[in-house]
Amino acid sequence: MKTMRASVLRGVRDIALEERPVPKPGPREVLVQVTSVGTCGSDTHYYEHGRIGSFVVDGPLVLGHEAGGVVVARGSAATRHALGQRVAVEPGVPCFTCPQCRGGRYNLCPDMRFFATPPIDGAFCEYVAVHEDFAYAVPDSISDDAAGLLEPLSVGVWACRRGRVGPGARVLITGAGPIGLVAAQTARAFGATEVVVTDVNPRRLALAAEVGATGTIDVRQTALASSGYVPDVLLECSGVPSAAAEAIRTVGRAGRVVLVGMGGDELALPLSHVQNFEIELTGTFRYANTWPTAIDLAASGAVDLDRLVTHRFGLADVEQALTASARDEAAVKAVVRPQE
Amino acid sequence: MKTMRASVLRGVRDIALEERPVPKPGPREVLVQVTSVGTCGSDTHYYEHGRIGSFVVDGPLVLGHEAGGVVVARGSAATRHALGQRVAVEPGVPCFTCPQCRGGRYNLCPDMRFFATPPIDGAFCEYVAVHEDFAYAVPDSISDDAAGLLEPLSVGVWACRRGRVGPGARVLITGAGPIGLVAAQTARAFGATEVVVTDVNPRRLALAAEVGATGTIDVRQTALASSGYVPDVLLECSGVPSAAAEAIRTVGRAGRVVLVGMGGDELALPLSHVQNFEIELTGTFRYANTWPTAIDLAASGAVDLDRLVTHRFGLADVEQALTASARDEAAVKAVVRPQE
Amino acid sequence: MKTMRASVLRGVRDIALEERPVPKPGPREVLVQVTSVGTCGSDTHYYEHGRIGSFVVDGPLVLGHEAGGVVVARGSAATRHALGQRVAVEPGVPCFTCPQCRGGRYNLCPDMRFFATPPIDGAFCEYVAVHEDFAYAVPDSISDDAAGLLEPLSVGVWACRRGRVGPGARVLITGAGPIGLVAAQTARAFGATEVVVTDVNPRRLALAAEVGATGTIDVRQTALASSGYVPDVLLECSGVPSAAAEAIRTVGRAGRVVLVGMGGDELALPLSHVQNFEIELTGTFRYANTWPTAIDLAASGAVDLDRLVTHRFGLADVEQALTASARDEAAVKAVVRPQE
Amino acid sequence: MKTMRASVLRGVRDIALEERPVPKPGPREVLVQVTSVGTCGSDTHYYEHGRIGSFVVDGPLVLGHEAGGVVVARGSAATRHALGQRVAVEPGVPCFTCPQCRGGRYNLCPDMRFFATPPIDGAFCEYVAVHEDFAYAVPDSISDDAAGLLEPLSVGVWACRRGRVGPGARVLITGAGPIGLVAAQTARAFGATEVVVTDVNPRRLALAAEVGATGTIDVRQTALASSGYVPDVLLECSGVPSAAAEAIRTVGRAGRVVLVGMGGDELALPLSHVQNFEIELTGTFRYANTWPTAIDLAASGAVDLDRLVTHRFGLADVEQALTASARDEAAVKAVVRPQE
Repeated sequence: MKTMRASVLRGVRDIALEERPVPKPGPREVLVQVTSVGTCGSDTHYYEHGRIGSFVVDGPLVLGHEAGGVVVARGSAATRHALGQRVAVEPGVPCFTCPQCRGGRYNLCPDMRFFATPPIDGAFCEYVAVHEDFAYAVPDSISDDAAGLLEPLSVGVWACRRGRVGPGARVLITGAGPIGLVAAQTARAFGATEVVVTDVNPRRLALAAEVGATGTIDVRQTALASSGYVPDVLLECSGVPSAAAEAIRTVGRAGRVVLVGMGGDELALPLSHVQNFEIELTGTFRYANTWPTAIDLAASGAVDLDRLVTHRFGLADVEQALTASARDEAAVKAVVRPQE
Repeated sequence: MKTMRASVLRGVRDIALEERPVPKPGPREVLVQVTSVGTCGSDTHYYEHGRIGSFVVDGPLVLGHEAGGVVVARGSAATRHALGQRVAVEPGVPCFTCPQCRGGRYNLCPDMRFFATPPIDGAFCEYVAVHEDFAYAVPDSISDDAAGLLEPLSVGVWACRRGRVGPGARVLITGAGPIGLVAAQTARAFGATEVVVTDVNPRRLALAAEVGATGTIDVRQTALASSGYVPDVLLECSGVPSAAAEAIRTVGRAGRVVLVGMGGDELALPLSHVQNFEIELTGTFRYANTWPTAIDLAASGAVDLDRLVTHRFGLADVEQALTASARDEAAVKAVVRPQE
Repeated sequence: MKTMRASVLRGVRDIALEERPVPKPGPREVLVQVTSVGTCGSDTHYYEHGRIGSFVVDGPLVLGHEAGGVVVARGSAATRHALGQRVAVEPGVPCFTCPQCRGGRYNLCPDMRFFATPPIDGAFCEYVAVHEDFAYAVPDSISDDAAGLLEPLSVGVWACRRGRVGPGARVLITGAGPIGLVAAQTARAFGATEVVVTDVNPRRLALAAEVGATGTIDVRQTALASSGYVPDVLLECSGVPSAAAEAIRTVGRAGRVVLVGMGGDELALPLSHVQNFEIELTGTFRYANTWPTAIDLAASGAVDLDRLVTHRFGLADVEQALTASARDEAAVKAVVRPQE
Repeated sequence: MKTMRASVLRGVRDIALEERPVPKPGPREVLVQVTSVGTCGSDTHYYEHGRIGSFVVDGPLVLGHEAGGVVVARGSAATRHALGQRVAVEPGVPCFTCPQCRGGRYNLCPDMRFFATPPIDGAFCEYVAVHEDFAYAVPDSISDDAAGLLEPLSVGVWACRRGRVGPGARVLITGAGPIGLVAAQTARAFGATEVVVTDVNPRRLALAAEVGATGTIDVRQTALASSGYVPDVLLECSGVPSAAAEAIRTVGRAGRVVLVGMGGDELALPLSHVQNFEIELTGTFRYANTWPTAIDLAASGAVDLDRLVTHRFGLADVEQALTASARDEAAVKAVVRPQE
């Protein structure tokens, strides 16, 4: 086992399989044989545009950051996992000692090294080396695909935490893509009484209802404002600023707004609504300390991640995986299985 | 003592003295002889435009909501204050039993009755009746004018609380009007290490420095972005959305933004900055539970309210008071003295 | 409808039915025809001892504070509920304007008027008058008995809030009486992953497991310390100080302890454990703002209150209800049905 | 510079100077030439008893953990400080990746390596190697002694944070030893309106008043309960459980209790007071993220650390330093100056 196959982004819309050395785990790292990697909109964005904002792909890059696998080797000081342990991978390792890290907000570490973010390689390959404390043992009740999809679930957990979703909350989720769908399930698991999801795609709304949304609104047919729904918490997962602005206007007194979806540079914030109702608004940037909760939610069945997987591809077909959503309206989550 | 003089807004730019019945205190109310009332931008706005947003003046209205005075009579069940007690007046009384009130956020009560907000009369008159628990005893170290100005100080206290200003914080305050000036002093009293104030008026910046700002920026001369200052907390007190948007871009990781100033309908929120840095943004609507702290700050000298008073007028000259800022660039706070 | 039957405590172990005037609702009050009232340990304690700590029964007192019923009349200014509306009663009305009330902690109001706490009468009678905002509409999915038992459920909700029980939490509940049993269900509904309940009564432990505890410990057989369980949150519902002290020693780093059960004057707090692990400990005193959440939990089936009712009595048999637990080891919750 | 002098505890009451190798800084470490080290009660306790609870000195140990100095060498990857930079030393370095560390509570890390805690050597020596991010640059306004005493100041900062001391708070501090004295100053700097300090030593009470306490109580003369003082926050710094219990009984509704002082195994917690007033109690274990704030407080003069230094000794006289308090009632803080 000296080399492995890796799917490498070499330029815009240019991905190819390469033979690369298997990474050597550092002292506190484990070597993980990757069994499943989810594809994310950010992977597709890098593939299509070669950049996301100020992050520019200027050399070969392995994409993929939603990974699960099996521990097959351990660094000299790594004792946390036994060989053969099935694990989920948290794909970013921070510096640990800056004020953000030491304050418990390691997701805001300016020196974060994050999978599939230039110049750090990701997980569309056979093996990855991971800090042992960023690999989390998963029980058998969590499938290989679900182990990888704990990453988007972490986004949902973080959104619910930032929005203080709790028992009795009325939640509005704009956008029924993969993040909206995990956020909806997470909100229910956090005790929300009402979880209303909006989208323009009836298939996705149907799926939202299936996985636990208490209501759905097709915003091509019904203006959100006319629904009369007054949420305590808005989890904005559409990434469409105009939709976000409209949704913010529906949030009730002392409500919270969490901007999860990315897209657009500016949002036309409705000032007097934010002031008169003292709305609290924030954005999310990845997540911190979410895997243990995400594992609990998936292992107990409170959140169903496998239900989101609509397509599976081998390592040779990463481009297919990255473009599945564009080609197939029924696509929700495509995963890559490097060992198949 | 059957009637009193009151300064009544009868239409746009139409104020006149009227003789009105002295109010009768309800069972839990005290009658306060008003000694000083500050003028606020909202008073001037009603005077000039007859409305603020959806609040429309459609009948005679007494303006003024920054009041101090002396208890001269008590309702049948009012026992909190002795006759002769000097008091500061909290000018809004909520319903007490709605979810906002019972949750400790009574400022968000939809049934709030607030001075000088149509159709509730304010304090540009000789006497007002006030719930005894919304009249606060003030010590002799607080002057009559300062007793009234505990109301804008409450705005500053609330802004600092909402922004979690605390020991070691670096604060940016945009706008050196009366609210910016009290916010700057409050931030220092809350332990902020750096308090930088911006404005376009050099006199006001000089005053900000005098009362405790550790730095000032004349944004006609120096672009805020070029200052290199990275605040933990932004207290936006200018009410200028473009200034607010520019200032938000300077806020550091996990920073807070509090929109205090009113003006404009929309703010062009810089999305990726808010997301990547997980900025927390909110607006303030009046205040809740602030008078005790405001009294402590003013009584101890940590905040100097008298320094802000640049003009004093009698009840016959309320129009002069309301237009002082427009006429005199050196004006900061004009107060009305109903007994003079 | 001029008079009604009321069950009156006239002295220690001396309860009798009396004919009393039906209360007249004040302007903001509704008259509630009581359909079910749960009995509480505090009712039994007053019955047996004539006092609880400094609260002394020194005149005739109607006990009972876990009440549900139907609105049958409304005060002149009461508009919230229609006649015939089924409601749950929050049995304490605070002063609304003290610092505790205005700060959102109305349960700590020193002037609280609370059912069945001398000298305020309770609900073991046919009708009670209640502030309309302290009567909560309940849906048909909540039975008459469950409407009354929203009161102990509120104790559980408050305990979970104070202990910050949330998704993924590991909870220990000491004591499987009615409060422990609602706390266990509430903790699960709040997302706790593990909820371990201790008691010395195997029947109650079996019931705990049936309603959702993930583990139980019979502490006559197994010392808690030897279980190896390390909770994040301890909800102490036994009221036995020695059990509380032992349980505190098992709580993990940064864990929370909520003292819900009453009994004993002092608790031997294990100092170094509290310090080295920075345990946060608090007690609960009734609850604030809990009914809406409690209604959501009961209406959705997340919490089963009817399962706790083991005995039902008419108004003539209140003494039987108060002594049911002493007589019958299988008793969990006895309710009184004043209309039967 | 190959060897240095170190003051080594070799057994109970047995300290001697030894020549030891100068430590070599690791890649991210700096070598600090120690200029001043404060003595702490824990140092004295190890000296007198050879253990503190479960921490047992079973080999030679260098004591001292309140250190300031100058950076004289840097590890291969240490870039934060220039040579010659004056620094304060945070004496504990955690594992960084456990749940406590990643949650921002690194003081609770079970794998903390802390100065002068067996088997980790401390700072009663000429040089120490420190992680560069645990050495903090100090300005010239902070003296060498004060640089070391930022460590006890951090204890005070942490206590005030844990107790949520803020503007307007009324604080009670039991015990006017070094920790009580820094806590009193910190509470004032955090905006507390009233800070009452108790002790049995009139000199220390006089010093408390001098550095900013607004009131003092000699509890040999006046029972605390009879003072009528009702604090919002109790910072217990005496380490005497009976004094702590008495003080807890004075805390007001929704008040906080922070157990800082160590001593005794159990505290007789007054249960009904904690429950009826919903007192929140916790202990402190060292501190997290406090140096930046402590530096701000000391640099601005808000806290005076030099005022606490009553005795200075050279490295040969560490035993004198450790026993200064026992010999001299006027002693507050003895410091060791390794370079003198």
